[in-house]
Amino acid sequence: MLLRIDHVGIACQSLDTAISRYETVFGLSVISRETNEQQGVREAMLALPDGPSYVQLLEPLAPDTPVGKFLARRGEGMHHVGYAVADVTAALAEIGGAGVRLIDSRPRHGSMGASIAFLHPGDLGGVLTELVQPAR
Amino acid sequence: MLLRIDHVGIACQSLDTAISRYETVFGLSVISRETNEQQGVREAMLALPDGPSYVQLLEPLAPDTPVGKFLARRGEGMHHVGYAVADVTAALAEIGGAGVRLIDSRPRHGSMGASIAFLHPGDLGGVLTELVQPAR
Repeated sequence: MLLRIDHVGIACQSLDTAISRYETVFGLSVISRETNEQQGVREAMLALPDGPSYVQLLEPLAPDTPVGKFLARRGEGMHHVGYAVADVTAALAEIGGAGVRLIDSRPRHGSMGASIAFLHPGDLGGVLTELVQPAR
Repeated sequence: MLLRIDHVGIACQSLDTAISRYETVFGLSVISRETNEQQGVREAMLALPDGPSYVQLLEPLAPDTPVGKFLARRGEGMHHVGYAVADVTAALAEIGGAGVRLIDSRPRHGSMGASIAFLHPGDLGGVLTELVQPAR
């Protein structure tokens, strides 16, 4: 069902500072920047050439957003992992059937036109897990 | 320099429980189990077909190991991210030159025969970052 690690989502206080760090230290390049009001984040995707896979940098739009609360509680660092799937709706049905709570029972809009859904970390060993069906 | 996300390292209290969860919920299979005394962990690698990329499950050998201390402080969850590189020694020189503190100034033995090195999360926005030069 899971095809590959699509991305690691990293919570940061300043998107520009974090982007600069990944550009300078690792030579990565931003391929997409968006603001997702529904998720309460400004974000950037930096591409790794093989895979494909991405570093997703997330800056909260406000303190009372999920990423804002995460930063207040845990500080900067890894926030979630996203796995690529061929069919997010089918994957959600299968995973829900296995007894894992779904944060999103239906897919919603994610980065770069993907259809995404989050799974509850409480049923997955503390790991906030995202399913990503990339845009064609 | 970074080729792809090689793996996400996940700290767990019980390796067997965590393996069972990833097998049952996601249909993944263990392709390698090892004990790494130097790192103080029992671990399992579960393979994703495309990428290639892996879920690495880590159970501490004792409370006073790095992963044991992580569990006591943060609880179960994502512990680090590993990126595949072609040449870990060259990558370390470049990254150290960019001013990032190296936990491992020289490569050491990692999972499945890889040469690996960790970078300091204090210089990388709270993200414990590993470089992985896979075995041939």
